[in-house]
Amino acid sequence: MRELPLSKVYQLIEPGPVVLLTTAHKGRANVMTMSWHMMMDFEPPLIGCIVSSSNHSFAGLRATKECVIAIPAAAMAKTVVAVGNCSGRNVDKLSRFGLTTARAEQVASPLIAECFANLECRVTDTRMVNRHNQFVLEVVKAWIDPTQKEPRTIHHRGYGTFVVDGETIKLKSSMP
Amino acid sequence: MRELPLSKVYQLIEPGPVVLLTTAHKGRANVMTMSWHMMMDFEPPLIGCIVSSSNHSFAGLRATKECVIAIPAAAMAKTVVAVGNCSGRNVDKLSRFGLTTARAEQVASPLIAECFANLECRVTDTRMVNRHNQFVLEVVKAWIDPTQKEPRTIHHRGYGTFVVDGETIKLKSSMP
Repeated sequence: MRELPLSKVYQLIEPGPVVLLTTAHKGRANVMTMSWHMMMDFEPPLIGCIVSSSNHSFAGLRATKECVIAIPAAAMAKTVVAVGNCSGRNVDKLSRFGLTTARAEQVASPLIAECFANLECRVTDTRMVNRHNQFVLEVVKAWIDPTQKEPRTIHHRGYGTFVVDGETIKLKSSMP
Repeated sequence: MRELPLSKVYQLIEPGPVVLLTTAHKGRANVMTMSWHMMMDFEPPLIGCIVSSSNHSFAGLRATKECVIAIPAAAMAKTVVAVGNCSGRNVDKLSRFGLTTARAEQVASPLIAECFANLECRVTDTRMVNRHNQFVLEVVKAWIDPTQKEPRTIHHRGYGTFVVDGETIKLKSSMP
Protein backbone atom coordinates (compact mmCIF):
# COMPACT_ATOMS: atom_id res chain seq x y z
CA MET A 1 0.00 0.00 0.00
CA ARG A 2 1.12 3.52 -0.77
CA GLU A 3 0.93 6.44 1.62
CA LEU A 4 -1.88 8.90 0.89
CA PRO A 5 -1.40 12.59 1.82
CA LEU A 6 -3.61 13.47 4.78
CA SER A 7 -4.97 16.44 2.83
CA LYS A 8 -6.78 14.00 0.50
CA VAL A 9 -8.49 11.88 3.14
CA TYR A 10 -11.73 13.88 3.02
CA GLN A 11 -12.17 12.84 -0.62
CA LEU A 12 -12.58 9.25 0.57
CA ILE A 13 -14.90 9.81 3.52
CA GLU A 14 -17.08 12.71 2.30
CA PRO A 15 -18.91 10.59 -0.33
CA GLY A 16 -20.36 8.42 2.45
CA PRO A 17 -19.04 4.90 1.78
CA VAL A 18 -19.71 1.95 4.05
CA VAL A 19 -16.46 1.31 5.93
CA LEU A 20 -14.94 -1.28 8.21
CA LEU A 21 -13.52 -0.23 11.58
CA THR A 22 -10.85 -2.30 13.29
CA THR A 23 -9.73 -2.16 16.90
CA ALA A 24 -7.21 -4.10 19.00
CA HIS A 25 -7.95 -4.52 22.68
CA LYS A 26 -6.70 -6.95 25.30
CA GLY A 27 -4.74 -8.93 22.75
CA ARG A 28 -7.63 -9.38 20.31
CA ALA A 29 -8.35 -7.55 17.09
CA ASN A 30 -11.93 -6.98 15.96
CA VAL A 31 -13.73 -5.49 12.99
CA MET A 32 -17.17 -3.92 12.57
CA THR A 33 -19.17 -2.40 9.72
CA MET A 34 -20.02 1.31 9.94
CA SER A 35 -21.97 3.85 7.90
CA TRP A 36 -22.58 6.61 10.45
CA HIS A 37 -19.57 8.84 9.93
CA MET A 38 -18.73 12.26 8.51
CA MET A 39 -15.78 14.55 7.86
CA MET A 40 -15.34 17.24 10.52
CA ASP A 41 -12.16 18.97 9.32
CA PHE A 42 -9.79 18.82 6.35
CA GLU A 43 -6.27 18.72 7.82
CA PRO A 44 -5.45 17.19 10.07
CA PRO A 45 -8.42 15.14 8.91
CA LEU A 46 -11.05 14.76 11.61
CA ILE A 47 -13.81 12.17 11.26
CA GLY A 48 -16.87 11.95 13.47
CA CYS A 49 -18.42 8.52 13.88
CA ILE A 50 -21.12 6.81 15.91
CA VAL A 51 -20.23 3.46 17.48
CA SER A 52 -23.11 2.11 19.50
CA SER A 53 -22.31 1.12 23.05
CA SER A 54 -23.96 -2.21 22.21
CA ASN A 55 -21.21 -2.93 19.66
CA HIS A 56 -18.34 -5.07 20.91
CA SER A 57 -15.90 -2.56 19.35
CA PHE A 58 -17.17 0.24 21.60
CA ALA A 59 -15.19 -0.80 24.67
CA GLY A 60 -11.98 -1.28 22.73
CA LEU A 61 -12.29 2.02 20.94
CA ARG A 62 -12.97 3.88 24.16
CA ALA A 63 -10.18 2.17 26.08
CA THR A 64 -7.41 2.25 23.47
CA LYS A 65 -8.45 5.47 21.70
CA GLU A 66 -7.22 3.93 18.45
CA CYS A 67 -8.78 2.38 15.37
CA VAL A 68 -8.36 1.88 11.64
CA ILE A 69 -11.02 2.83 9.12
CA ALA A 70 -10.70 0.50 6.14
CA ILE A 71 -12.68 1.24 2.98
CA PRO A 72 -13.91 -1.75 0.97
CA ALA A 73 -14.77 -1.72 -2.72
CA ALA A 74 -18.03 -3.20 -4.01
CA ALA A 75 -16.54 -6.66 -4.56
CA MET A 76 -16.36 -7.00 -0.77
CA ALA A 77 -20.07 -6.26 -0.20
CA LYS A 78 -20.96 -9.77 1.00
CA THR A 79 -18.11 -9.75 3.49
CA VAL A 80 -19.10 -6.28 4.70
CA VAL A 81 -22.63 -7.50 5.44
CA ALA A 82 -21.38 -10.69 7.10
CA VAL A 83 -19.08 -8.65 9.35
CA GLY A 84 -22.06 -6.52 10.35
CA ASN A 85 -24.27 -9.51 11.09
CA CYS A 86 -22.23 -11.02 13.91
CA SER A 87 -20.38 -9.80 16.98
CA GLY A 88 -16.75 -9.92 18.01
CA ARG A 89 -18.02 -11.07 21.39
CA ASN A 90 -18.45 -14.59 20.01
CA VAL A 91 -16.45 -14.67 16.80
CA ASP A 92 -12.93 -13.86 15.60
CA LYS A 93 -14.35 -12.02 12.61
CA LEU A 94 -11.07 -11.19 10.91
CA SER A 95 -10.24 -14.89 10.78
CA ARG A 96 -13.74 -16.19 10.00
CA PHE A 97 -14.13 -13.92 6.97
CA GLY A 98 -10.60 -14.49 5.70
CA LEU A 99 -9.55 -10.86 6.02
CA THR A 100 -5.80 -10.30 5.73
CA THR A 101 -4.47 -8.00 8.42
CA ALA A 102 -1.39 -5.84 8.02
CA ARG A 103 0.47 -3.91 10.65
CA ALA A 104 -0.36 -0.24 10.99
CA GLU A 105 2.42 2.26 11.59
CA GLN A 106 0.94 4.56 14.24
CA VAL A 107 -1.73 2.44 15.97
CA ALA A 108 -2.13 -1.13 17.20
CA SER A 109 -5.37 -1.74 15.26
CA PRO A 110 -4.75 -3.71 12.07
CA LEU A 111 -5.06 -2.55 8.48
CA ILE A 112 -7.17 -4.75 6.18
CA ALA A 113 -5.17 -5.63 3.09
CA GLU A 114 -8.24 -6.32 0.91
CA CYS A 115 -9.52 -2.77 1.38
CA PHE A 116 -8.40 -0.12 -1.11
CA ALA A 117 -7.80 2.49 1.59
CA ASN A 118 -6.85 2.30 5.27
CA LEU A 119 -6.87 5.24 7.68
CA GLU A 120 -4.99 4.99 10.98
CA CYS A 121 -6.94 7.00 13.57
CA ARG A 122 -6.63 8.26 17.12
CA VAL A 123 -9.62 9.37 19.18
CA THR A 124 -9.13 13.05 19.96
CA ASP A 125 -12.45 14.03 21.52
CA THR A 126 -14.69 11.86 23.68
CA ARG A 127 -17.06 14.53 24.97
CA MET A 128 -19.93 13.25 22.82
CA VAL A 129 -19.44 9.58 23.72
CA ASN A 130 -21.69 9.37 26.76
CA ARG A 131 -24.59 11.26 25.22
CA HIS A 132 -24.43 10.28 21.55
CA ASN A 133 -21.87 7.42 21.21
CA GLN A 134 -19.93 9.81 18.98
CA PHE A 135 -16.16 9.62 18.70
CA VAL A 136 -13.99 12.24 17.02
CA LEU A 137 -11.09 10.59 15.18
CA GLU A 138 -7.96 12.22 13.86
CA VAL A 139 -6.44 10.42 10.89
CA VAL A 140 -2.71 10.19 11.61
CA LYS A 141 -1.65 8.04 8.64
CA ALA A 142 -3.43 7.08 5.44
CA TRP A 143 -2.76 4.31 2.94
CA ILE A 144 -4.12 3.58 -0.49
CA ASP A 145 -3.76 0.46 -2.64
CA PRO A 146 -2.62 1.70 -6.06
CA THR A 147 -3.42 -1.66 -7.67
CA GLN A 148 -7.15 -1.16 -7.10
CA LYS A 149 -7.99 1.21 -9.93
CA GLU A 150 -11.08 3.40 -9.59
CA PRO A 151 -12.66 1.38 -6.80
CA ARG A 152 -16.45 1.65 -6.54
CA THR A 153 -17.69 2.02 -2.98
CA ILE A 154 -21.04 1.00 -1.54
CA HIS A 155 -23.59 3.10 0.36
CA HIS A 156 -26.12 1.59 2.74
CA ARG A 157 -29.83 2.27 2.32
CA GLY A 158 -31.04 -0.01 5.09
CA TYR A 159 -31.74 -3.74 5.49
CA GLY A 160 -28.97 -4.96 3.22
CA THR A 161 -29.80 -2.67 0.31
CA PHE A 162 -26.75 -0.87 -1.04
CA VAL A 163 -26.21 1.54 -3.88
CA VAL A 164 -22.95 1.10 -5.73
CA ASP A 165 -20.98 4.04 -7.13
CA GLY A 166 -21.98 4.76 -10.72
CA GLU A 167 -20.68 7.33 -13.17
CA THR A 168 -18.38 10.19 -12.15
CA ILE A 169 -19.22 13.73 -13.21
CA LYS A 170 -17.02 16.82 -13.04
CA LEU A 171 -18.35 20.34 -12.66
CA LYS A 172 -16.50 23.60 -12.30
CA SER A 173 -16.35 24.36 -8.59
CA SER A 174 -14.41 26.55 -6.23
CA MET A 175 -15.21 24.23 -3.31
CA PRO A 176 -12.40 21.93 -2.15
CA MET B 1 -45.07 16.02 -1.44
CA ARG B 2 -46.02 13.07 0.71
CA GLU B 3 -45.14 12.62 4.34
CA LEU B 4 -42.33 10.12 5.00
CA PRO B 5 -42.33 8.18 8.31
CA LEU B 6 -39.53 9.43 10.55
CA SER B 7 -38.33 5.84 10.99
CA LYS B 8 -37.20 5.83 7.34
CA VAL B 9 -35.19 9.04 7.36
CA TYR B 10 -31.87 7.26 8.03
CA GLN B 11 -32.23 5.43 4.73
CA LEU B 12 -31.89 8.80 2.96
CA ILE B 13 -29.00 10.26 4.94
CA GLU B 14 -26.88 7.20 5.70
CA PRO B 15 -25.77 6.71 2.06
CA GLY B 16 -23.98 10.09 2.18
CA PRO B 17 -25.69 12.23 -0.48
CA VAL B 18 -24.83 15.86 -1.11
CA VAL B 19 -27.69 17.88 0.39
CA LEU B 20 -28.95 21.44 0.46
CA LEU B 21 -29.59 23.14 3.79
CA THR B 22 -32.05 26.03 4.04
CA THR B 23 -32.43 28.53 6.85
CA ALA B 24 -34.64 31.58 7.44
CA HIS B 25 -33.23 34.39 9.54
CA LYS B 26 -34.14 38.05 9.93
CA GLY B 27 -36.72 37.84 7.18
CA ARG B 28 -34.42 36.23 4.60
CA ALA B 29 -34.18 32.63 3.51
CA ASN B 30 -30.85 31.15 2.44
CA VAL B 31 -29.54 27.88 1.05
CA MET B 32 -26.13 26.20 1.20
CA THR B 33 -24.61 22.96 -0.09
CA MET B 34 -23.45 20.40 2.48
CA SER B 35 -21.72 17.02 2.46
CA TRP B 36 -20.41 16.77 6.02
CA HIS B 37 -23.27 15.07 7.79
CA MET B 38 -24.10 11.69 9.37
CA MET B 39 -26.91 9.85 11.08
CA MET B 40 -26.63 9.81 14.88
CA ASP B 41 -29.83 7.99 15.86
CA PHE B 42 -32.74 6.21 14.16
CA GLU B 43 -35.90 7.59 15.78
CA PRO B 44 -36.39 10.32 16.45
CA PRO B 45 -33.86 10.73 13.63
CA LEU B 46 -30.81 12.67 14.72
CA ILE B 47 -28.39 14.06 12.14
CA GLY B 48 -24.98 15.51 12.93
CA CYS B 49 -23.66 18.12 10.52
CA ILE B 50 -20.76 20.53 10.22
CA VAL B 51 -21.60 24.08 9.14
CA SER B 52 -18.49 26.22 9.03
CA SER B 53 -18.67 29.48 10.95
CA SER B 54 -17.49 31.12 7.72
CA ASN B 55 -20.74 30.09 6.01
CA HIS B 56 -23.47 32.72 5.92
CA SER B 57 -25.95 30.04 7.07
CA PHE B 58 -24.05 29.48 10.33
CA ALA B 59 -25.47 32.54 12.11
CA GLY B 60 -29.04 31.79 11.05
CA LEU B 61 -28.81 28.15 12.06
CA ARG B 62 -27.36 29.02 15.45
CA ALA B 63 -29.86 31.80 16.12
CA THR B 64 -33.08 30.15 14.92
CA LYS B 65 -32.14 26.53 15.72
CA GLU B 66 -34.10 25.46 12.66
CA CYS B 67 -33.29 24.31 9.15
CA VAL B 68 -34.47 22.09 6.31
CA ILE B 69 -32.27 19.45 4.70
CA ALA B 70 -33.36 19.06 1.08
CA ILE B 71 -31.96 16.17 -0.97
CA PRO B 72 -31.41 16.82 -4.68
CA ALA B 73 -31.26 14.16 -7.38
CA ALA B 74 -28.44 14.06 -9.92
CA ALA B 75 -30.29 16.27 -12.43
CA MET B 76 -29.76 19.16 -10.00
CA ALA B 77 -25.96 18.73 -9.81
CA LYS B 78 -25.14 22.00 -11.61
CA THR B 79 -27.45 23.95 -9.30
CA VAL B 80 -25.96 22.25 -6.25
CA VAL B 81 -22.47 23.35 -7.26
CA ALA B 82 -23.62 26.87 -8.10
CA VAL B 83 -25.28 27.17 -4.69
CA GLY B 84 -21.98 26.12 -3.10
CA ASN B 85 -19.91 28.60 -5.09
CA CYS B 86 -21.50 31.81 -3.80
CA SER B 87 -22.61 33.21 -0.47
CA GLY B 88 -25.97 34.30 0.87
CA ARG B 89 -24.17 37.38 2.15
CA ASN B 90 -24.32 38.88 -1.35
CA VAL B 91 -26.88 36.86 -3.22
CA ASP B 92 -30.49 35.73 -2.81
CA LYS B 93 -29.54 32.23 -3.88
CA LEU B 94 -33.01 30.70 -3.83
CA SER B 95 -34.13 33.32 -6.32
CA ARG B 96 -30.99 33.42 -8.46
CA PHE B 97 -31.00 29.67 -9.04
CA GLY B 98 -34.72 29.45 -9.64
CA LEU B 99 -35.41 27.19 -6.69
CA THR B 100 -39.09 26.87 -5.76
CA THR B 101 -39.68 27.20 -2.06
CA ALA B 102 -42.59 25.63 -0.23
CA ARG B 103 -43.76 26.23 3.29
CA ALA B 104 -42.59 23.79 5.94
CA GLU B 105 -44.99 22.65 8.63
CA GLN B 106 -42.85 22.74 11.78
CA VAL B 107 -40.06 25.23 10.97
CA ALA B 108 -39.71 28.61 9.27
CA SER B 109 -36.98 27.43 6.87
CA PRO B 110 -38.34 26.67 3.41
CA LEU B 111 -38.66 23.32 1.68
CA ILE B 112 -37.22 23.12 -1.85
CA ALA B 113 -39.84 21.75 -4.21
CA GLU B 114 -37.33 20.48 -6.81
CA CYS B 115 -35.69 18.17 -4.25
CA PHE B 116 -37.07 14.64 -3.93
CA ALA B 117 -36.90 14.70 -0.11
CA ASN B 118 -37.14 17.47 2.49
CA LEU B 119 -36.42 17.05 6.19
CA GLU B 120 -37.63 19.68 8.67
CA CYS B 121 -35.08 19.89 11.46
CA ARG B 122 -34.58 21.49 14.86
CA VAL B 123 -31.17 21.91 16.47
CA THR B 124 -31.21 19.87 19.68
CA ASP B 125 -27.58 19.99 20.81
CA THR B 126 -25.13 22.86 20.33
CA ARG B 127 -22.35 21.68 22.64
CA MET B 128 -20.07 20.86 19.71
CA VAL B 129 -20.66 24.13 17.86
CA ASN B 130 -17.90 26.22 19.37
CA ARG B 131 -15.20 23.58 19.05
CA HIS B 132 -16.17 21.72 15.88
CA ASN B 133 -18.95 23.72 14.16
CA GLN B 134 -21.10 20.62 14.66
CA PHE B 135 -24.85 20.87 15.07
CA VAL B 136 -27.09 18.00 16.14
CA LEU B 137 -30.41 18.13 14.28
CA GLU B 138 -33.61 16.30 15.10
CA VAL B 139 -35.81 15.63 12.09
CA VAL B 140 -39.33 16.59 13.16
CA LYS B 141 -41.12 16.14 9.82
CA ALA B 142 -40.07 14.46 6.59
CA TRP B 143 -41.42 14.75 3.05
CA ILE B 144 -40.83 12.77 -0.10
CA ASP B 145 -41.84 13.54 -3.68
CA PRO B 146 -43.53 10.36 -4.96
CA THR B 147 -43.31 11.59 -8.56
CA GLN B 148 -39.51 11.32 -8.54
CA LYS B 149 -39.06 7.58 -9.04
CA GLU B 150 -35.78 6.02 -7.87
CA PRO B 151 -33.87 9.29 -7.65
CA ARG B 152 -30.10 8.97 -8.01
CA THR B 153 -28.16 11.09 -5.51
CA ILE B 154 -24.67 12.55 -5.88
CA HIS B 155 -21.66 12.17 -3.59
CA HIS B 156 -18.85 14.71 -3.50
CA ARG B 157 -15.24 13.65 -4.04
CA GLY B 158 -13.71 17.10 -3.93
CA TYR B 159 -13.23 19.98 -6.38
CA GLY B 160 -16.48 19.51 -8.28
CA THR B 161 -16.06 15.77 -8.84
CA PHE B 162 -19.15 13.79 -7.94
CA VAL B 163 -20.04 10.13 -8.12
CA VAL B 164 -23.63 9.41 -9.07
CA ASP B 165 -25.58 6.49 -7.62
CA GLY B 166 -25.24 3.41 -9.81
CA GLU B 167 -26.78 -0.03 -9.45
CA THR B 168 -28.60 -1.18 -6.32
CA ILE B 169 -27.71 -4.52 -4.73
CA LYS B 170 -29.59 -6.43 -2.04
CA LEU B 171 -27.94 -8.77 0.41
CA LYS B 172 -29.43 -10.70 3.30
CA SER B 173 -28.77 -8.66 6.42
CA SER B 174 -30.03 -8.40 9.96
CA MET B 175 -28.89 -4.79 10.20
CA PRO B 176 -31.58 -2.10 9.94
